[in-house]
Amino acid sequence: MTTKIEQLKTHLAEISDLMYIGNLLGWDQETNMPPAGVKERGEQMATIARLVQQRITSDELCRALEEAEAEVVGMDPDSDEARLVKVTRREVDKRLKVPSRYYEELSQLAVESYAAWKEAREADNFERFRPYLERMVDLRREFASYFSPYEHVYDPLLNEFEPGLKTKEVQQIFTELRPRQVALIQEITSRPQVDDSPLRQYFDPQKQWDFGVEVLTKFGYDWQRGRQDKAAHPFTTSFGLNDVRITTRILEDYVGSALFSSMHECGHALYDLGSDPALARTPLAGGSSLALHESQSRLWENLVGRSKPFWEHFYPRLQEYFPQQLGNVSLDAFYKGINKVEPSLIRVEADEATYNLHVMLRLEIEIQLMTGELQTAHLPEAWNTLMNEYLGLTPPNNAKGVLQDVHWSHGYIGYFPTYSLGNLISAQLWDTIQKEIPNLDDQIRKGEFGELLEWLHAKIHRHGSKFEAPELVQRITGQSITPQPYIRYLRQKYGEIYGF
Amino acid sequence: MTTKIEQLKTHLAEISDLMYIGNLLGWDQETNMPPAGVKERGEQMATIARLVQQRITSDELCRALEEAEAEVVGMDPDSDEARLVKVTRREVDKRLKVPSRYYEELSQLAVESYAAWKEAREADNFERFRPYLERMVDLRREFASYFSPYEHVYDPLLNEFEPGLKTKEVQQIFTELRPRQVALIQEITSRPQVDDSPLRQYFDPQKQWDFGVEVLTKFGYDWQRGRQDKAAHPFTTSFGLNDVRITTRILEDYVGSALFSSMHECGHALYDLGSDPALARTPLAGGSSLALHESQSRLWENLVGRSKPFWEHFYPRLQEYFPQQLGNVSLDAFYKGINKVEPSLIRVEADEATYNLHVMLRLEIEIQLMTGELQTAHLPEAWNTLMNEYLGLTPPNNAKGVLQDVHWSHGYIGYFPTYSLGNLISAQLWDTIQKEIPNLDDQIRKGEFGELLEWLHAKIHRHGSKFEAPELVQRITGQSITPQPYIRYLRQKYGEIYGF
Repeated sequence: MTTKIEQLKTHLAEISDLMYIGNLLGWDQETNMPPAGVKERGEQMATIARLVQQRITSDELCRALEEAEAEVVGMDPDSDEARLVKVTRREVDKRLKVPSRYYEELSQLAVESYAAWKEAREADNFERFRPYLERMVDLRREFASYFSPYEHVYDPLLNEFEPGLKTKEVQQIFTELRPRQVALIQEITSRPQVDDSPLRQYFDPQKQWDFGVEVLTKFGYDWQRGRQDKAAHPFTTSFGLNDVRITTRILEDYVGSALFSSMHECGHALYDLGSDPALARTPLAGGSSLALHESQSRLWENLVGRSKPFWEHFYPRLQEYFPQQLGNVSLDAFYKGINKVEPSLIRVEADEATYNLHVMLRLEIEIQLMTGELQTAHLPEAWNTLMNEYLGLTPPNNAKGVLQDVHWSHGYIGYFPTYSLGNLISAQLWDTIQKEIPNLDDQIRKGEFGELLEWLHAKIHRHGSKFEAPELVQRITGQSITPQPYIRYLRQKYGEIYGF
Repeated sequence: MTTKIEQLKTHLAEISDLMYIGNLLGWDQETNMPPAGVKERGEQMATIARLVQQRITSDELCRALEEAEAEVVGMDPDSDEARLVKVTRREVDKRLKVPSRYYEELSQLAVESYAAWKEAREADNFERFRPYLERMVDLRREFASYFSPYEHVYDPLLNEFEPGLKTKEVQQIFTELRPRQVALIQEITSRPQVDDSPLRQYFDPQKQWDFGVEVLTKFGYDWQRGRQDKAAHPFTTSFGLNDVRITTRILEDYVGSALFSSMHECGHALYDLGSDPALARTPLAGGSSLALHESQSRLWENLVGRSKPFWEHFYPRLQEYFPQQLGNVSLDAFYKGINKVEPSLIRVEADEATYNLHVMLRLEIEIQLMTGELQTAHLPEAWNTLMNEYLGLTPPNNAKGVLQDVHWSHGYIGYFPTYSLGNLISAQLWDTIQKEIPNLDDQIRKGEFGELLEWLHAKIHRHGSKFEAPELVQRITGQSITPQPYIRYLRQKYGEIYGF
C-alpha cells in the first residue's frame, strides 16, 4: 500500500462513514422513529446527502484521486488498489457531471412526489400524482443530458443502479426472455392449478419469527453482526461491514410472507457482510450492483428456499411449529403450495414464473417515458394494455395498476430491470455452483449451507464492489448475462410441479 | 428576523443536525446495535465529532457570527436573536481556545480509558485504571490551561457542564448544605427503620412496563414525539425537538427501579420536548444545562413521583397490576418503603437524603486532583476516608468505592456537582410552583399534571438554552441557587416518615 492511495482512502473513509450514517437515519425512521420526528429526520438526511456530495466533488478528493491514479499505473488491474481508483473515478465523474443544485432539486421533489404518490394510491387518483411524475421524468431526462453523448437516453439512468450495463444489452436479454416466459406461463395455466390454501391459515406471528430465525441461523447469518426487525416493506441496510441488518414483515394469515422475505433479505445481508475486511470504509465495501445483490437474495429465497431439498430438511421442523395447521399437509402439497403460479396484478406478490413480466412492462414504459414516446397522461392506458398483453389481466383501477410501486416517486427510473437481471444471474450462478459442488442438494437436504456460503463468499462476496456485474458473471460462469439458465430452471421446476 | 442572523442560523442548523445524528449513533449503540458493530460505530462517531468541531471553528461561521453580533446591538437582550448570538459566541470561543488535536486525543483516551475502567471495576483492580485516569487528569488540566487566567482551575471544567457557574459558588452552596444534610441523616438513622421488603418481590416485567407507560402518559409524555426502550443504564436522548426518546431498566425483583427511572428520564424528555419551535436547529434548542436538566428529572421523579399525593392516586392502580404482591400492603407502608433512607456505598442507588453527600465527596476529590493536592495513587484512600466521614461507611473494595462511576473514564470531571445542584433547584422551583399553583397537591391526587407541566413549560422548557441556570433560577424564584428549600423539603418529608 502506497502513500497516495492511503491519502485517497482517508478521504473515502469519511464519505463511507457518512453514507453508513445516512443508512442508519433511514433504518431508524422505518423501524423505531416516532411519527412526529419525520420533518427533522428529513433535514438530517438532507444534511448528510449534502455533505456526501460536497466531499465526493471536493478539490481535495479530486487531487488525491489524480495522484492515486498516477500511482496505480502498472499495478495489477485486479488489485484492490487499482480497482479502488477505478471505481472511485467512476463515482466521482458521475457526481462531477451533475450540478449539486440538481441533487437538491431531486431530493426535494422526491419528498413531495412521495407524499403525492401515497395519497394518489390510497385515493386511486392518478391525476393527484401525475404532475409530480411529469416533473420527475423531466428531471431524470435532465440527468441523462449531463451524460450526453450517450448511446441511449436510458443508459445514464440504468447506470445509476447497474454500472457497466447498456440499455441495448438489457433489451436483448429481455427480448430473448419474454416469449419463453410467456409460453411457460401459458403451459402452466393450461394445467390443473395447485392448492395453496394450507399456507393461508392463522400462523402465530412469534412462531413464524422463531422459525425464520432458525433458518437464517442455518444459512450462516451472524447475529453478532446483524439483527432482524419488523418493517412495513422489508429491506436490508448496512452500517459497516460488521453491522448489516435485515427486516421482515409477518402476516398472520399467510405463512409464506415472513419466511421468504427473511430469506431474501438474508441473502442481501450475507453479500454485504462478506466483503474482504481490507475493503472497509472504501467504495469497494459491500455488494457491487443491484442486479448482483438481487441475485444473492433470490438465490437464497428461491433457488434454496423454494426448493424440494430445502423443505425435505425443514418441513418436519415447520410442522413441529405448526402441528395444527400443517400436521396433515404432505411435504409434496406444501412444496407445490409455495410454488403456485398465478398471473397477478401486483409485482411484489408475483411468483417466480410471472415476476419478470412485471419488470419488462416497467422497462418498456420507462424507456418510452424517457424517449418522449409516451406522455404521462397516457400512462395508465399504456400500463393496462401491456398488462393485458403480458399477463392477460386488466387492473380494476390504477391503485392496483400504474400506481402500485413507490419507485418512480423517488425518481428511481432505471431500477426495475435489476430485479429481473438478478433472477437471471441467480440461475446462472446456480448452474455453475451445481457443477462445482456436485452434492449440494444432499447438503441442503441435511440443512447444511456452509459450503454454498463459502463458494459465494470466495467467488462473489469477498470482492465487494471491485467488479461490475457483467464482468463478474463472465468471470464466474464463463458467459455474459443470459436468460437461458433461468428459463431451463423454471421449465424443469414447474414441469415437475404442474406435470408437463 | 434579519439577514445576517438568518445566515448564521444556516450554519448552526447544519451543526445541530450533526449533533442530533451523533445522538442517534449513540442511542442505537445502546439499544439495538449488534456487538460486532462497535469498532465501525466508533469511527462514525469520531467522524461526526470531527465535522462538528470543524464547523464550529470554521472561518465561515466565525464571520457569520461577527456579522450577527453587529446586527443584534441594540436589540432586546432577551430576544431569541440576541440570546442566540450570545450562546453561540460562548460555544465558539470555547471551541476556538482548544486545539482540535486536543479533542482527538481526549476522545481516543476516553475509548481506551473506558475499556480499562470496565476491566478494573470487574476485577476490583484500581491499578488497571490508574494510569489512564492519570493521563485523563493531565489532559483535563491541559484543558483548563487553555482558559487561563481563571479564578479556579476547576472553573473551565465545571463550565463544560454548567455554564455561568463558578467553583466558588458551588463550594459555598455545598458548605452550607453539608452539615445540615449530615445532621438530617443522623436524625433519621437514630429512628426505627422503615420496611421496604414489599417492594422487593417478583414483579412481572411487562406489567411494570405497562404501569410505567400509564404514568408517563399522564405526565404528558407524547408518544408521537418519543418512545421508550430498555437500556442497561437509562438515559434520555434527542434527535430533534419532536423526537426525544427515553430508556429504562426493569428489575424483576424490585418494583422501584423501572418506575422511578422512567419518571426521571421522562422529566428530562419533557424539558427537551418543550423548547419553543422557533429555537429548532439552533444551539438554543433543548435544555439549558445539566443542573437545570436534573432539576426537571428530579422534580418528576421525587417531588412528584415519591410524594404522598401522587400515590394516593396511583397506588390503587398499582395494586390492580400486582394484587398478589401489594394487595395487602397499605398505602402508608408502600409510601414509606419507596422513601426509605439508608446510607449506602453506591451513588446511583442512594436515596434522596444521602445522595448529595456522594456528590460532595466527588467534588472534593475532583478539585484536589485538579489542583494537584491529590495524586491518583492516593485516590482510593482519599475516597474511603471521605466516605467514612460523610456516610459512616467503608467500602469493602474499590469496585464499590472509587471505581463505581463511569464518568472519569470519559473525562467527565466537573459533571457530578450538577446532580446535586439539580436536586437543590428542583426543591427551589417546587416552592415557587406551590405558591403559584396553590391546589397542586389536589391536582396530583386526581392524577392531573396538566397545569404543572404548563407552568414548567412557560417558565423553563420553552426557553430552551436561552438562559443559564443561575440566571433562570433567579428570574423564576427571585433567589440565587440555594440549598434552603431542599433542606426544608427533606426535613418535612422525613420528619413525617421517621417521626421527628
